[in-house]
Amino acid sequence: MYRYLNYISSPHDIKGFSSDELRVLASEMRDAILNRLAKRGGHFGPNLGIVECTIALHYVFNSPVDKFVFDVSHQSYPHKLLTGRVSNFINDDKLDAICGFTNPSESEHDIFNVGHTSTSISLACGLAKARDLKGSNESIIAIIGDGSLSGGQALEGLNSAYELGTQLIIVVNDNDMSIAENHGGIYKNLKELRDSNGSAECNIFKSFGLDYRYVSDGNDVCELIKVFTELKSASRPCVVHINTVKGKGYDSAEVDKEKYHFFGPFDRKTGKSLYSSTDETYISVARDYITEKIKSDKLFALVCAGTPSCVGYDAELRNQAGAQYIDVGIAEEHAVGFASAMAVNGAKPLFATYSSFIQRCYDQMSQDLSLNNSPATILISNASIYGMRDQTHLGLFDIPLLSSIPNLIYLAPASKEELVAMLDWSANQSSFSVAIKGPAGPVLDADYEPSSDYSSRKYQITKKGEDVAILALGAFYKIGLDLYTELKKKGINATLVNPRFANGIDASTLDELSKTHNKFVTIEDGVLDGGFGQRVGSYLAKGDAKVYSYGFKREFIDRYDVSEILYQNRLTPEQIIDDIL
Amino acid sequence: MYRYLNYISSPHDIKGFSSDELRVLASEMRDAILNRLAKRGGHFGPNLGIVECTIALHYVFNSPVDKFVFDVSHQSYPHKLLTGRVSNFINDDKLDAICGFTNPSESEHDIFNVGHTSTSISLACGLAKARDLKGSNESIIAIIGDGSLSGGQALEGLNSAYELGTQLIIVVNDNDMSIAENHGGIYKNLKELRDSNGSAECNIFKSFGLDYRYVSDGNDVCELIKVFTELKSASRPCVVHINTVKGKGYDSAEVDKEKYHFFGPFDRKTGKSLYSSTDETYISVARDYITEKIKSDKLFALVCAGTPSCVGYDAELRNQAGAQYIDVGIAEEHAVGFASAMAVNGAKPLFATYSSFIQRCYDQMSQDLSLNNSPATILISNASIYGMRDQTHLGLFDIPLLSSIPNLIYLAPASKEELVAMLDWSANQSSFSVAIKGPAGPVLDADYEPSSDYSSRKYQITKKGEDVAILALGAFYKIGLDLYTELKKKGINATLVNPRFANGIDASTLDELSKTHNKFVTIEDGVLDGGFGQRVGSYLAKGDAKVYSYGFKREFIDRYDVSEILYQNRLTPEQIIDDIL
Repeated sequence: MYRYLNYISSPHDIKGFSSDELRVLASEMRDAILNRLAKRGGHFGPNLGIVECTIALHYVFNSPVDKFVFDVSHQSYPHKLLTGRVSNFINDDKLDAICGFTNPSESEHDIFNVGHTSTSISLACGLAKARDLKGSNESIIAIIGDGSLSGGQALEGLNSAYELGTQLIIVVNDNDMSIAENHGGIYKNLKELRDSNGSAECNIFKSFGLDYRYVSDGNDVCELIKVFTELKSASRPCVVHINTVKGKGYDSAEVDKEKYHFFGPFDRKTGKSLYSSTDETYISVARDYITEKIKSDKLFALVCAGTPSCVGYDAELRNQAGAQYIDVGIAEEHAVGFASAMAVNGAKPLFATYSSFIQRCYDQMSQDLSLNNSPATILISNASIYGMRDQTHLGLFDIPLLSSIPNLIYLAPASKEELVAMLDWSANQSSFSVAIKGPAGPVLDADYEPSSDYSSRKYQITKKGEDVAILALGAFYKIGLDLYTELKKKGINATLVNPRFANGIDASTLDELSKTHNKFVTIEDGVLDGGFGQRVGSYLAKGDAKVYSYGFKREFIDRYDVSEILYQNRLTPEQIIDDIL
Repeated sequence: MYRYLNYISSPHDIKGFSSDELRVLASEMRDAILNRLAKRGGHFGPNLGIVECTIALHYVFNSPVDKFVFDVSHQSYPHKLLTGRVSNFINDDKLDAICGFTNPSESEHDIFNVGHTSTSISLACGLAKARDLKGSNESIIAIIGDGSLSGGQALEGLNSAYELGTQLIIVVNDNDMSIAENHGGIYKNLKELRDSNGSAECNIFKSFGLDYRYVSDGNDVCELIKVFTELKSASRPCVVHINTVKGKGYDSAEVDKEKYHFFGPFDRKTGKSLYSSTDETYISVARDYITEKIKSDKLFALVCAGTPSCVGYDAELRNQAGAQYIDVGIAEEHAVGFASAMAVNGAKPLFATYSSFIQRCYDQMSQDLSLNNSPATILISNASIYGMRDQTHLGLFDIPLLSSIPNLIYLAPASKEELVAMLDWSANQSSFSVAIKGPAGPVLDADYEPSSDYSSRKYQITKKGEDVAILALGAFYKIGLDLYTELKKKGINATLVNPRFANGIDASTLDELSKTHNKFVTIEDGVLDGGFGQRVGSYLAKGDAKVYSYGFKREFIDRYDVSEILYQNRLTPEQIIDDIL
């Protein structure tokens, strides 16, 4: 039972607080956040660092009339605590009722569903422009971390904000960290600004035409209240650059900022994670390949865009890799252009990112990479229902996204051996632009011989039968194998195919199979709409065979249970057998 | 016959030139460029402005060992003249042998196929990084216009370039213009830099951590040679900010910079376009709707990202629209986030861009717009084989690109009346995120009654028949109509359907049609792979009907003839009849 927090059901409740009361409140909020983090895990450092800023914002402004836009919104826990969601942090049975991001279905104080980075300035500019057209006068405030500034959309927003010519506050929460360390020239300038107490003449924000205020202690609630109050009636866009401590109030998080950016459930006394695991994953398989390749081939390089975790690259491995590891900051567009050009000039780059973030660089995948037939490799991690499970971070759209791009080969390994074989083939060839769909979930050993050459775009038949042909792509080869086994039990000797190419039709194999099979089943780990199965279905639609395609419905699913989603989409062998027999 | 230009077959040929000779050469190059522009049209202002800079680059550096990366590469004509392609500018029968962009298949001096903006810094960084891994020492130079700087990838590149720590030259060709006027705070800083002869303390490039040089007369070849020579052995990335005159050397182009950014074939004496036309186009239909709507509804606003031409918005119309017109600069990602948020806060934004550029904001279409069910409207112009015909600017990928996004409604109008009806329905509703596939080519009058409501996602049957059902989407409804008529002549009374929803399956209509039709034909104006027809084909693949899908093969086609491409893809009524009967 907290002295203040338990009685806060809306931001209105803190309006009369004294500065001492606000400081006690901040400490109670940290405790409540740690309670939730210990039990459920979540974004750790970002939330602990922004407590005072959030209090000051809600103290000065009148949410939801005044509107806050949190970038990534992985720092919105304090905001949730002040907007009627205290019980979701302290009552065990209510922890699961909220998500880790802002979500309008939770509260009118949450303006957007947000989970991707670098969008807040654009969104805030749009809210402000609508305000101006309507003639209303609400305040609009974007809250963005320093790490998110390197993303193209954030920089586009900084440039465009100037032209609004009306009130817009952009709080730059500078804790001198991205998820990992920051990368890029901006961060040199932010340091100059911090070191000069905001007075350095060369100022990235002023160079974008914006007004600028600096707050040296961004965890000083009174100072923040003072500045925000002054800006309530500002008539031009202004950046408020605040210097905060990431992970503030939890010693381990203040020290190891990367580890505690996002952290699983843990013991509050020892700080130890409850579920740490050293099991093999597809990510660890990729990591080990990359590490070996870096050692043996000086032209090979790993390129990341702020998320080295997508291939398990911790600080030690990054350090070992030296010049063969490049983090371009959160900047997926640049990363693809950069890697494409490296390959054109004779190096062997592997750009690795998560499936949810490959969405941020379609044009570069098309123009910089594939149009130029650049032999770079793009590894798309967690491209799977077993990947991240928030509606903002789904790994289910990469097949439709990438499969319409000419020239590009999009490979889908069905086992760990095949993942390595594909990575190695791609790294050492110089003719094709290649993307690899990184599987997730249980790691499968190959029950077939992976090829060492993927230039022919041929499907691989792993079990030869008749009547029913099962084309089971990537990680869902396992479902195909289970289906094959179940059919066998019923006396049906099906054919099992590992298609390997997520975006290719192997016409001769399909034509050949059509002669002896009257039913085709396609199975893929992604949305059906625009995916692999529809390509096969459409190819065969002129013939007599029936085609049954399995994958996921086109929808934003949220915090889901994998088995449940598989069942809902009839992706169990039993359901498929029900459908086709 | 030129004094110098006719004898230049490689950059080597200008190495010994005196400054006077270089100046004569520049004037000859302008003349050759104008000859080509008059006969074929092309990018006008960008090429005339960069002549001296290109001469200086080739004078100082050793292409192709040293590598130039031209942003957009619509300013590469002078480069082509100095790298063996003079005849393609002055010999009438060789004009068509080159394209308007850099293209490695034309010359080893062209490093990339480029046509989209803001990529050059990323690409140059990648070339430089590969150089450093290889241990070679070629110079790498990006050449980017001020207008392209507002694009996210360019800004990401500026941020990341700092960390290279080795030689990289970024020439910022500042002519104080984008395609239209520039927009955003950066341009205030560029003006400060120009006005202070590069000495202003607040400097956008220095704030990104980069070294900086200013050249006040960017058309002074000797000054440029001096600066480039000094930077040959630089050991850090450096921006060379040069102030040039867009359209230099052709009076009309120096005066009306927007009109002469890209200009069709013209009479060199009068400056008048040879083929100007005031015919109705789908773009003019959209323009007229927008103009009326702006007048009648103060909450309606047109958002553009540097290309107001995509809805025919010239300077006069932009001026008339006042605060209801917003150009965010070349920044499609920001534009989608901005428009999405405007709609969330009660305005009625229409973001218009070209099909080729919607590729630059998939993630924003997914996350900012559709995940939030923001009722903004996105109009995608020239989403058609009749659109832009360079391999870098194809309008054929928007259906596969957008159709996997949940929530989004993607409408494809089949006539001018329907385009207006869809724009109007979308502007005035508040429940759906809507994209509209802007047709191109011959403008069709509706032979059916367009709906005033597109919330039901139902196909429209426009001719009722049996046996053969023709689903003809968007602009290709016309091909469907012609096919219907041809079949009629053969005694077949087909059904004709206007599907209207490019990304939707109308299951009940398809099921109903399946009862009385055993052949389905789908026709769409875009690549087949991941498109509308594959969705229909796959939906029907479990049944008995045969489905024939027509659209374009997944490939980068270049400078094509529409009829030829239609024929190659069997998109004429006669070919379709051959296939299905």
